[in-house]
Amino acid sequence: MRKVIFGVANSLDNFIARQDHAVDWLLWGKEAAAFMSQFWKTIDTVLWGRKTYEVALKGGGVGSYGNVKNYVFSKTIKKSQDKNAVIVSEDAAKFVRKLKKQKGKDICVMGGGELGKSLLEANVVDEIGFNIHPVLLGSGIPLFHAMKRQIDLELLECRQFKNGCVLVRYRVKR
Amino acid sequence: MRKVIFGVANSLDNFIARQDHAVDWLLWGKEAAAFMSQFWKTIDTVLWGRKTYEVALKGGGVGSYGNVKNYVFSKTIKKSQDKNAVIVSEDAAKFVRKLKKQKGKDICVMGGGELGKSLLEANVVDEIGFNIHPVLLGSGIPLFHAMKRQIDLELLECRQFKNGCVLVRYRVKR
Repeated sequence: MRKVIFGVANSLDNFIARQDHAVDWLLWGKEAAAFMSQFWKTIDTVLWGRKTYEVALKGGGVGSYGNVKNYVFSKTIKKSQDKNAVIVSEDAAKFVRKLKKQKGKDICVMGGGELGKSLLEANVVDEIGFNIHPVLLGSGIPLFHAMKRQIDLELLECRQFKNGCVLVRYRVKR
Repeated sequence: MRKVIFGVANSLDNFIARQDHAVDWLLWGKEAAAFMSQFWKTIDTVLWGRKTYEVALKGGGVGSYGNVKNYVFSKTIKKSQDKNAVIVSEDAAKFVRKLKKQKGKDICVMGGGELGKSLLEANVVDEIGFNIHPVLLGSGIPLFHAMKRQIDLELLECRQFKNGCVLVRYRVKR
């Protein structure tokens, strides 16, 4: 079955952006670029939380992520301003369970700590991965939100990049 | 000059204990034990936040950390219940700056996200290190508290343990 992967770049204190959504602190490098290039080959569907989607819209839309299906979970937005995205108003976990049964490549959960939390709690996420940046931002948009239950993980991979980032990938234990 | 090192074991979602202070989720192994054994040889002073100290008292006191000087920062406690600890009521950063000028081995900040935060903000911490456990606790006692400023780090080391823990050590950039 296709996997649901929740992955993002974070600060060591687990923020995914500054309070004003700025990601000027992100480091780029050949190693991360090579990893992401490989990763995108395994993905054909991207799931967006409403807030992350709205940030992406300001940056030119969600289409820049290549030839993938984009679903945005929102109970308030009715129609997407971006032709590359479909708004989904039904329960995210229910929708994702159906997606997983369809044929296709893996499914990526983009940014959005709140969407990530709801999918983790509902036990539909198969892998999580973070590119931990060598910085304490001190404040910002949190990667993790309080969850009702503990989630046990198995470390799949840990890579140290030359720019000081640490990439960690985990399988969600069931 | 002797270094101040803030180090602790944490969950991937940056908790240092469950809400009830339980650390039953901590993993042990020869690799972490070997690292800690080596680490303690470089330390002769341990700094405790009041809350972490009170948790340690319930567990039999602070003396179990070997032949080191223990300072507990508190404006409310007057006298230590543990003969191995000295209560310090003056400003923690000011006190630590004086300690650093004295001869001695390195200084360890124990647990205590709140003490860690105040010392990081005051720019007296030289290194931070975490043993990131393969678990999302979902809730608990946070490792990091909101800080007034960003702290840039240089990755010194990243080690993958067989039990799935990832040990990361950083130098605080000045």
